[in-house]
Parts: sequence; structure tokens; C-alpha cells
Amino acid sequence: MAARIALDVMGGDQAPDATLRGALFACAADNPRRLAPERVLLVGDEAVIRSKLAELGCTHSFPIQHASQVIGMAEDPATSLRSKRDSSIMVCVGAVKKGAASGIVSMGNTGAVVGASTLGLGTLEGVRRPAISVTLNMTGKPVTILDMGANREAKPQDLVQFASMGAVYMRDCLGVESPRVGLLNIGSEPTKGTDLLKETYPLLEAQKERLNFIGNVEPNDLFHGEVDVVVTDGFTGNIVLKLMEGFSAFMLQAMLKELAAHQAAWAKEALGNLRKRVDYAEYGGALLLGLNGVVIKGHGRSDATAVANALAVAARTVDSGINQHIIEGLRAPVA
Amino acid sequence: MAARIALDVMGGDQAPDATLRGALFACAADNPRRLAPERVLLVGDEAVIRSKLAELGCTHSFPIQHASQVIGMAEDPATSLRSKRDSSIMVCVGAVKKGAASGIVSMGNTGAVVGASTLGLGTLEGVRRPAISVTLNMTGKPVTILDMGANREAKPQDLVQFASMGAVYMRDCLGVESPRVGLLNIGSEPTKGTDLLKETYPLLEAQKERLNFIGNVEPNDLFHGEVDVVVTDGFTGNIVLKLMEGFSAFMLQAMLKELAAHQAAWAKEALGNLRKRVDYAEYGGALLLGLNGVVIKGHGRSDATAVANALAVAARTVDSGINQHIIEGLRAPVA
Repeated sequence: MAARIALDVMGGDQAPDATLRGALFACAADNPRRLAPERVLLVGDEAVIRSKLAELGCTHSFPIQHASQVIGMAEDPATSLRSKRDSSIMVCVGAVKKGAASGIVSMGNTGAVVGASTLGLGTLEGVRRPAISVTLNMTGKPVTILDMGANREAKPQDLVQFASMGAVYMRDCLGVESPRVGLLNIGSEPTKGTDLLKETYPLLEAQKERLNFIGNVEPNDLFHGEVDVVVTDGFTGNIVLKLMEGFSAFMLQAMLKELAAHQAAWAKEALGNLRKRVDYAEYGGALLLGLNGVVIKGHGRSDATAVANALAVAARTVDSGINQHIIEGLRAPVA
Repeated sequence: MAARIALDVMGGDQAPDATLRGALFACAADNPRRLAPERVLLVGDEAVIRSKLAELGCTHSFPIQHASQVIGMAEDPATSLRSKRDSSIMVCVGAVKKGAASGIVSMGNTGAVVGASTLGLGTLEGVRRPAISVTLNMTGKPVTILDMGANREAKPQDLVQFASMGAVYMRDCLGVESPRVGLLNIGSEPTKGTDLLKETYPLLEAQKERLNFIGNVEPNDLFHGEVDVVVTDGFTGNIVLKLMEGFSAFMLQAMLKELAAHQAAWAKEALGNLRKRVDYAEYGGALLLGLNGVVIKGHGRSDATAVANALAVAARTVDSGINQHIIEGLRAPVA
């Protein structure tokens, strides 16, 4: 049987409606990336799941794993992970630990998803710290950025590992041969930026045979398709992610306002197209790389389409054997 | 006589054409923020300036200060500042030192402008480090962010001073009473973010009587009009600035493409309006706060309108007496 993906049915602003609809979309006959229903393990309150599935007219027989608790979007991750051992995200992690699933998709509390996955699954052999990896596909060419916030601070060796993991992901899951790796900085010269970046640059340079390191990249390089993997620390990455989310929402709203006077339906459609291009949730959400398992964290506000996309990405990622390749990549001597 | 602004005529991608046209716009009779021509000191190659002014049909008698050298946009700042003592930016700084001008506007090499100003003018009494301050006015309510890149790294005390300087700027120059100050972070809790931020939070909190500190703000708060001054270190600020520049250019271009099929002239106009709102150069460029003088660094690609705006902002800033207020603000005991 193909590997299973555990879906945290209770996580997210629109859960369980969006998550269960998402599971149905993921398995719909007309979905080109259709998953077999037995590959999607629904984790959450069993009674709620069964009644909601009946309401949605579901004819599939999804596997279900009961979880009696839920960690809310605004709860403190550390506290809630300690007190809610039977929360849906913890049960998802347990399913992977027991081998009942190989991947997790959650739209829930980010801190809780990262914390539960990291503590529960443990890092892959040789991996110092996991990283949140986000793939943007705005220009038509995907760009993967990591770490987007799994860690608050990083050491040069962490950034080198992020580069290696990100490159494996691009190759394994997005089919990019010899992905170009850039270090996010405020200028292109090796002497630019913080001490962390100045120390990381020569380490990446020393691995040129293994990693296609193209040097420092600046934030606007994200929009020009000339880099495939962008490496940064979790603080800077999270600032980048949240700034892009806020700014794109602002820009789209401002454009709608500018265009509203003209009542043009096609203009709204054009903006809808653009919205999809700048929303990374369209491409499955954020991937937690470096753990013994595949974990995808989607937006809390994910709708059913985003959930279905995340499930498909999780399945493809598991099937690619990425984790074995990450371990092999890191076994190569680090300068 | 009102204080003079030294204009680095030779700095910028479109110099001296854009800079001199900008000086003319700034002094045009129909400009609501019209400056008297004797307030604008033109600094650069005198022969070039005179011939260009004649070509533009200029009838004003601007004061002119000759400078025999130019620092190019791509030159290394440290090297060129040492070797080009008579460069236009150095002569601008010299004019302020000698009291011939009180402010500087340059669209030239950022590193050279920051370096020449900092070394030449020195910091204000009590100021540890100058900061680049950028005011965005996207939502109709201005937000000032600093440091946008004058410093590579910062200490908690620096961030506290940036908060104080930014608040004075908002009050003095933009008329915002009791500006709300936020610390840029990846979450709202005081324990979020890097060590720098965790150490800075209580210092800002301790100054609540003097500073209207509202706590941590996240990047998307820049777009909601609920904070007036956003404080960050120069690395993060520069990432934010460059990301917004790159992202807005991408979004606008993508929109144009989406709309192109419809050949709608009004749509182009609508996007042009939006472009102005997201381009901080429309509001004068970046201000270097904390120096003995007022320094404005505009985009290298500034056109004449941006130059004229920068001159008006420089004049208004000088006239506000901001520097005296910054010094007074910092004299208050720091917790």
C-alpha cells in the first residue's frame, strides 16, 4: 500500500469543514492528482468526522483515527502540547511514529505543529535542526525558501544544512536539476550582511561541487526566476513570509478598490488569478524539512482546495523518498 | 534666510538631468510646496550644471558649489570616499559642515551617502548610531520604519534610540501626535523573536511615559494603519525594504499583464495610482536620522518629481528643528 498521509482534521480556522472537504477534493475522481482515499488518514473527533462526512455525502471509506482534544489557533504551543496529549496534531505525530502514516498535513497552530513534529518525530540522521520550507511559484518558476520560522536563530552550519535540504527538495519533488542555491542577504558581495551570513558564505562556497551555490541573493531576486533555493535564518524568513502575505493582501485589495469604479468583472477575475499566484497555500503550504516524516503546515485560513493541494504535495513528497536523499546529502563532508 | 538644502546634482542613475529638473520643479511657481531657489544649493560640476540649466531654460539663480568628482552608483563606498575627496556628495557634506547648508538630498550611491554623512557630519549629541528612516504612505496613514540599512547590526540601546528618533520625526515633520511605536517581530508576545528583540522589549516598555510603545508588531501590521513608527535593525529593515520594492514591482507588472488583454487605458491609470502609493520615493526617499544635519537619500532611479519631493521634505525637516528635539528626547534617562 502506498504511504498514508495523516490529516489533522481539527486544525485551522475553517476546520473541520475545510479539512474534510479538502480530503474529498483530494480523492475526487476528476482531480488530476487524485489520491486513493485509503491514503488519507483522518485524525480528529471521530463522531464529528463521521457526521460531517455524511453531511457532505461522502461515499469513500477513509481510515479514521480518533483524537479527543484540539489545540486552538491562539493557544500557547508549549503549554498546550504538554496538557493535550490526545490532541489531533499529537495523534497525527503518533500515527507517523507507529508507522500508520508517513506524512502529516495540518492547517493548525504553527507552533504546535512544529513543536509536536520536532519532539515527536525527531530530526533525520545528521540533521541539526528542521526548517520550514515554503515554495513560491509567482513567476512560473518555483522558488523554495527556508527556514521560514522553525528556528528563532541559526548558526552557519544550520544554514548550510538548510541549503542542502532545500536543494534535495527541489530536485526530488519539483524536478529541478542542480538547483541554484542563494543566500538571502542585503547585497551580493561575500562581505555583506550579518556575521552569520559572512561566516556562512565560505562554507557554502566550499561545497560548490555538491551544491550549486550562486552566492548572495537579494529579496528582489525572488521575483526574477534566477535562483531556485533561497537560504535564510528562521527570523528573517518569517519576516519575509509575513511581509509578503501582508503586502500581497494589501496590494490586491488596493487594486480592487482602484478597479471597483469600473465594475469590470474581468478585472476581478484577473486579480483572482494573481491572488493564486502569490498565495503559497495554492502550492501546498509550508513543508517542515529535516524530520523523520513529512510534515506540511498550511495556512490557518486554508480552504478545501488548499487542503487538497497540501495532501497531494504531502503524498508526492513522501513518494519521492526525499528524506533518504537528505540524509545522504548531509553525509558528504562539510567543509 | 531660511536654511539651505545641498542637492547632490551628480548622484543617481538619471543625474544630472533628473536632479536639475527636480530642482526646477521644487521651485516652480505652481508647486504648492514651492521652495525659494536660493534655498537649493546645487553641488556638482559647475560647467555641466550651468549648461544643463541653460538647456532647461532655467531663469532662477540657484547658488552653485563646484565639485570636480563623482562617485558612481556601483563604486565601493569606502574606497571611493577615500580617493574622491572632491566628489559631489563629499562637497555636500562639506557645505553642511561649513554652515553653507543644513540639509542634503542625494540620489547617489547609498553606501557613499551614508558613509560621507556619518563621518563628515558626525552623530547628534547622545546618538549612538544614525538610522535610515523610510516613510511609507500606502494606506493613507504614514508609517515610518527605521533602521532600513544604515547599520549592519544593532544593540538593544540602538533600537531604543531609533524608536525615539522615529517618534520625533513623526511628530515634528508629519504632525502625528504621540506616535505609536512598535518593535518589528515575528509575533506579538514579548518573548518572541531574536535575543536582540527580547532584550529590547523591556527597555522600550520602561520608557512608556516618553514613548507610546505599543509592543511587538508583525510585518502585516505595516498595512493596517495601527502603528506609526516601526523599529528594526538595519539588516532586517533592508530586507523589508528590498522585498517590498521587488514585490511591488512584480505585482504591478503581473497586474499589467493580466489586464493587457483588455487594453483598458483606465486600468493602466489605476495601476499607476497604486504604483505611486507603494513607492516611498514619492514621499521624499530615505532620511538619515541622528546626524548633525538632515540627509535624504533617494532612489538611484529617481526622476525629477522624486527629486523635487525630496527637496521639499528636506526643507520641511530642517525647518521643523527635528535635530534639537532628537537630542532633547535622548537626554531623558534610558532605563
